[in-house]
Amino acid sequence: MAPAPPWHVSAWFNAPQPLSLEGLRGRVIVLHAFQMLCPGCVSHSVPQAERVHRLLAADDVAVVGLHTVFEHHAAMTPVALQAFLHEYRVTHTVGVDAARPGEAVPATMHAYGMQGTPTLCLIDRTGRLRLQHFGRLDDMVIGAEIMALVHERGDNAAATLGKSRSDGIAGCAPSGCAVNRDERHS
Amino acid sequence: MAPAPPWHVSAWFNAPQPLSLEGLRGRVIVLHAFQMLCPGCVSHSVPQAERVHRLLAADDVAVVGLHTVFEHHAAMTPVALQAFLHEYRVTHTVGVDAARPGEAVPATMHAYGMQGTPTLCLIDRTGRLRLQHFGRLDDMVIGAEIMALVHERGDNAAATLGKSRSDGIAGCAPSGCAVNRDERHS
Amino acid sequence: MAPAPPWHVSAWFNAPQPLSLEGLRGRVIVLHAFQMLCPGCVSHSVPQAERVHRLLAADDVAVVGLHTVFEHHAAMTPVALQAFLHEYRVTHTVGVDAARPGEAVPATMHAYGMQGTPTLCLIDRTGRLRLQHFGRLDDMVIGAEIMALVHERGDNAAATLGKSRSDGIAGCAPSGCAVNRDERHS
Amino acid sequence: MAPAPPWHVSAWFNAPQPLSLEGLRGRVIVLHAFQMLCPGCVSHSVPQAERVHRLLAADDVAVVGLHTVFEHHAAMTPVALQAFLHEYRVTHTVGVDAARPGEAVPATMHAYGMQGTPTLCLIDRTGRLRLQHFGRLDDMVIGAEIMALVHERGDNAAATLGKSRSDGIAGCAPSGCAVNRDERHS
Repeated sequence: MAPAPPWHVSAWFNAPQPLSLEGLRGRVIVLHAFQMLCPGCVSHSVPQAERVHRLLAADDVAVVGLHTVFEHHAAMTPVALQAFLHEYRVTHTVGVDAARPGEAVPATMHAYGMQGTPTLCLIDRTGRLRLQHFGRLDDMVIGAEIMALVHERGDNAAATLGKSRSDGIAGCAPSGCAVNRDERHS
Repeated sequence: MAPAPPWHVSAWFNAPQPLSLEGLRGRVIVLHAFQMLCPGCVSHSVPQAERVHRLLAADDVAVVGLHTVFEHHAAMTPVALQAFLHEYRVTHTVGVDAARPGEAVPATMHAYGMQGTPTLCLIDRTGRLRLQHFGRLDDMVIGAEIMALVHERGDNAAATLGKSRSDGIAGCAPSGCAVNRDERHS
Repeated sequence: MAPAPPWHVSAWFNAPQPLSLEGLRGRVIVLHAFQMLCPGCVSHSVPQAERVHRLLAADDVAVVGLHTVFEHHAAMTPVALQAFLHEYRVTHTVGVDAARPGEAVPATMHAYGMQGTPTLCLIDRTGRLRLQHFGRLDDMVIGAEIMALVHERGDNAAATLGKSRSDGIAGCAPSGCAVNRDERHS
Repeated sequence: MAPAPPWHVSAWFNAPQPLSLEGLRGRVIVLHAFQMLCPGCVSHSVPQAERVHRLLAADDVAVVGLHTVFEHHAAMTPVALQAFLHEYRVTHTVGVDAARPGEAVPATMHAYGMQGTPTLCLIDRTGRLRLQHFGRLDDMVIGAEIMALVHERGDNAAATLGKSRSDGIAGCAPSGCAVNRDERHS
């Protein structure tokens, strides 16, 4: 199983210093990609990530938000994100996915092959990407899958979690915003 | 009873041409003041205004949104508002409350003495401000109060609706964002 | 327009004395038919009727619940209804629709031709049935339609409200429970 | 740590044959005590138990409902429960907690010392009661705690889950119904 791709982040919020996959090795990482103007992210997945942070995060689990802007770039600037995080009382760490010159889709989103927002990634203690889901996930399933990774021990790490799943969203639906073909190729 | 203060709007969205109180005379006006980064507006009052527009608006009732930015001005620009209205599928008319040089609170918000967002104003067929409420209102109450104004006839217009009510919000609470003392006086 | 059919009620709860259409003449009546084991009634329409009672009922508006049991008769007895009303904190008046010997559908439900539960009926100040709806209605629409009837004056009573509408429910769906053909004819 | 007390059940629904702790040994058991006229059970914990059943139950996890009637006994009879399970589309197994002559609180509820409904109990693969909670629990926490028990291996079974916790409900509150002192001693 391949390791999770490295992150390309141009700014961090709610973090004393930049985070990296290497720096979090040994912990289960909940990576949550969102956009501040994606309705399904605002109503569902951002508060859900905050719940993971408050209910489950500790020595074993780290929650990292990733602002993966692939549309409305002039509206979703870092200063706007900062105001958003303040008003929505987001306390977990959030990074700004680094823009790629001339491209709509930012660098980390591109490296992971994400189809839109929200996307949830679970990375195990050894740095492998074990689940990637575009769309909504139940709280109960997230709690269970995180805890399954927390309790893995060495060789018995089963690859039972599905990688790269999707809710099949097109455009911006209540559950999320999909990357259009044009945006992917721009 | 005093007439509703005129509007000062620097840009209109979802409107073929600028709106005014005079132009809407004869109709009941539902004026809905909000900010795109006010959580209580996004989750509750913007979709509620859209429901009024879809369920009750017609010849008799006009719904007008007003983007009254009094904080995070660099984040809530007209281009950001345009993206917001697009992603949240807002179809009713929205005006940008005109900034006042050197002041945090914009012109129309100041003229109405609004305490924060969301604020709902009901203006009767003759242009008088009959209800102004800061915070949340039940759908059932809004439906009833609008219809009470629709059915008023001439002299029997009772002033039963309360003007300038408030939920007593401080800062940004789940139900809305209040203007701070500093912002009011800046 | 025909007058609303009279009610056939075998027991009353939350009422000092039996109610009747005649006794309520002059007021707008919100008649709310439900079953205590109809999920859409419990989650949506019973609390909605209670909101009407608390927000809009007064001298002008009366809210009356009607327990129209057309299935599971052994489960939804008057003693069970009494426990239900107590536990769900229902404070408006509720009548038990009178059973008809050998028939599944009770008497008032039959007289009104109701298709299932929940059904909402609006009866105007003069006793005419102005709206009958099977399924869910928005709070905003209910508030508006009640207030439209409250403000009617004599001859200008327009028949704008639709009679006998339905959400097209079959069996028990999230929004309500429909009478089956067998139950109607039994 | 003491084993979970045995169950005393007078009737089973959605089960081909009676269940017992012994028969489920080796699996994690989610025991969910409720009453069909407890509002917090109907709106929250019964659908939550059904979600556990649909999302997490398999060879490793068994969901068992327990109808622990301690009030309104004449209303919450087995025939009423059967209608309730049918209308609410409950598909997991549910047992009727056996009445004790002359006592309000039934036998299993008494043996576990439950304070009211809903109460959630988690029993590990070896039959020990590891968590007992009166009131509401987040889906995310339930998912995590179940999976923690699923992944326990032999001696490393940590007793990290809290036994006999409570939301401190009195009477029937939105989150549940508490046993009154009189009912406990009756």
